[in-house]
Amino acid sequence: MTHYDGLLRKIEKKEVNVAIIGMGYIGLPTALFYAMRGVKVQGLDTNQSLINQLRKGIIPIHEDGLTDIANEFISKVQLVNSYDDVGESDIFVLCLPSPVDENGKPVIKYLENAVKDIAKVSKKGGLILIESTIPVGATEHLAQLFARECDFKLDTDFWFAHCPERVLPGKVVEEMNTIHRLVGGISIESTELATTFLSQIYGAELVHPTSSSVSEATKLAENAYRDVNIAYANELAKLCTAMSIDVTEVIKLANLHPRVDILSPGLGVGGYCIPKDGRILVESAREKGGIAELIPAARHVNDSMPLHVSKRIREEILNHTNEGTVGLLGLAFKENVSDIRSSPTIELLRALTSTDVSVIVYDPLVNESFGAKQADSMVELLNNSDIVVLCVGHDQIIKELEAQNLTEKIFVDPRNLMPQMKSKVKRYVGLSI
Amino acid sequence: MTHYDGLLRKIEKKEVNVAIIGMGYIGLPTALFYAMRGVKVQGLDTNQSLINQLRKGIIPIHEDGLTDIANEFISKVQLVNSYDDVGESDIFVLCLPSPVDENGKPVIKYLENAVKDIAKVSKKGGLILIESTIPVGATEHLAQLFARECDFKLDTDFWFAHCPERVLPGKVVEEMNTIHRLVGGISIESTELATTFLSQIYGAELVHPTSSSVSEATKLAENAYRDVNIAYANELAKLCTAMSIDVTEVIKLANLHPRVDILSPGLGVGGYCIPKDGRILVESAREKGGIAELIPAARHVNDSMPLHVSKRIREEILNHTNEGTVGLLGLAFKENVSDIRSSPTIELLRALTSTDVSVIVYDPLVNESFGAKQADSMVELLNNSDIVVLCVGHDQIIKELEAQNLTEKIFVDPRNLMPQMKSKVKRYVGLSI
Repeated sequence: MTHYDGLLRKIEKKEVNVAIIGMGYIGLPTALFYAMRGVKVQGLDTNQSLINQLRKGIIPIHEDGLTDIANEFISKVQLVNSYDDVGESDIFVLCLPSPVDENGKPVIKYLENAVKDIAKVSKKGGLILIESTIPVGATEHLAQLFARECDFKLDTDFWFAHCPERVLPGKVVEEMNTIHRLVGGISIESTELATTFLSQIYGAELVHPTSSSVSEATKLAENAYRDVNIAYANELAKLCTAMSIDVTEVIKLANLHPRVDILSPGLGVGGYCIPKDGRILVESAREKGGIAELIPAARHVNDSMPLHVSKRIREEILNHTNEGTVGLLGLAFKENVSDIRSSPTIELLRALTSTDVSVIVYDPLVNESFGAKQADSMVELLNNSDIVVLCVGHDQIIKELEAQNLTEKIFVDPRNLMPQMKSKVKRYVGLSI
Repeated sequence: MTHYDGLLRKIEKKEVNVAIIGMGYIGLPTALFYAMRGVKVQGLDTNQSLINQLRKGIIPIHEDGLTDIANEFISKVQLVNSYDDVGESDIFVLCLPSPVDENGKPVIKYLENAVKDIAKVSKKGGLILIESTIPVGATEHLAQLFARECDFKLDTDFWFAHCPERVLPGKVVEEMNTIHRLVGGISIESTELATTFLSQIYGAELVHPTSSSVSEATKLAENAYRDVNIAYANELAKLCTAMSIDVTEVIKLANLHPRVDILSPGLGVGGYCIPKDGRILVESAREKGGIAELIPAARHVNDSMPLHVSKRIREEILNHTNEGTVGLLGLAFKENVSDIRSSPTIELLRALTSTDVSVIVYDPLVNESFGAKQADSMVELLNNSDIVVLCVGHDQIIKELEAQNLTEKIFVDPRNLMPQMKSKVKRYVGLSI
């Protein structure tokens, strides 16, 4: 029997051993989801302290519903921290970071290292699935690297496919059940094996076979699309600010049009995916002579928002003085998550402190302060600030705010999350009025 | 009785006389729609030959369903060509062009002239509605100009509101029935009078009162949103071309994502509204110190598409020679309309002929050739061209093409309208493959 037939039979009989590489924001929920589906799954992370935490049942990520499924299924995931422990796996699912460096160039060394480590321990007849968002051509590159390292023949001894995660931070658990999956193999056989396996996990109706380059480009194009549309909302807010027009009303009325769906503007775009994926798409195309104009402009607009808000606070509220303390509510990159990667609040904090404005921060989900004074509670923050900025609308923050007396505060709401505060504060500064 | 109460009563009793100023793409369907609703309506255009045509029942605009309603209702519209004939009107609806000049600055002189002409003939107690898309602040400016010209007092003797048309060219008649209307008065009274009147025409559930500046900004923001999203699709197509990836597959797969809706790329953006309205929004904000980055980038991307397609034809098909004739199918700015304003085909024609490529054109709805050879039929075009470019997918063009033998033709399909031609032509060149 060929290795292909052997692996296909194992998949069909639901006898595969799966190793999830990387126990972070995607890897951990994915491992739990596989366990829930009855797959024999290992979870590998080289961060020993993370593995120790998980073994004790401590879930360091705040995600809706994650603790519930962890309580039930974490014991079904064999947690390991060495590649030596995953040598018997048939399928490796790589959930590893793929950031950009300070020049905007994609960094795939974490995936390269993982592929090399797997090459050292794996047997023939296996499949590597890459969930990370990567440059166009990277799956092929990683497959070639793997083949060179262990002298396996691709498409005979081993298969590769790009199967990018597409879930929304904060709704990862919910969307694992509903989101359409792309399966881009480096060959027809790779696509077939990966499609057969993932159809068992997610249901065939959610699994869409394609090529690795189309899958890579599609994932990048999705996030660049979001970035461009958020940038449009942010640019509109800035233009409306200049014209003294309420952008919230403009967007509400514009969206009555059947072909218009403008997103909500805010403090900028954070998180791990959207700020970098447009850059990776632009860089992938640039290497082949393609020139992007719109995506870089969108990046620039979104990146400008924390400084735009800082400038409004400095000029319109503080009148260029440093009198008064600014309290920032919410440090995470979005509501109801603990993830602080590329958080616009941190950029706002830097912009304010760079002009010596005194800042205090509070986030019930984040225990870091980035050099600012950190309040342990909403009351402590309010007691110590004259200007309160609602940076992130965690449910808990909104609930706590509603219970407070803010009549003496200047309330800045750069995402227009609580327009109802207009009558309850000394002064309300929203998106554009 | 005050003039306000007098006009309100007339509106409520459905006794108003209405004059539609401008019998073009919006004014003519609007006049017919009002007549259909039983309103006593005059249609004014200073173009005498247009009025003569209309009086004979000749409709010079190709719009789905327009001829049908014209046959039934054109006799109910009193067609006139002098402002002296509309002095008894209570409500004036301005459907006039508001272009940008060669520097991208908005031109509102047609509206200014109309307002001055109305000032000469109108009586107190009237209302002017502006359907044109105009810069933020222009309604207020036109109202002040009117008041100065005739010495009427605004909000006592006369009222003004911006009620922008939002219909889709090609679907104007259908969308008159369904599209939500904005009513932005220069004062609460203006908004009230206009809302009462338009609610009778379109139904109260479709009429949304606001201020004139919000209405002006909203209409501009809608079209800038479309422009940005078309630009994203076009940029993605260009990047995919560079990476040899099929953008159609990328968009299809990306749009499986619940928060992604990428539009179709093409030859660029034409027509009267979208190419200019983003510019007007940018200019309105710039005057107040607002800086746009994304909207100008979108304009540039969309404007670059005819040249991009011309370059592909010159480099990939003609190999930098002038051997062979290029046949362009469709001159209108979009399918199933006769409107050629800002048509990307004309830009493509210019780009090709500027490098001495021989071009022949055919459009069953447009009787102009813009300096190129003009074919009178599909057969004549095919007999005279080696490369056929499907620029505009009029139903008639698609139908005629399907009946032809194209096995000897190179078929360029920059909007990917007929991928089924791949197996029926000598060579198929789509969006990005």
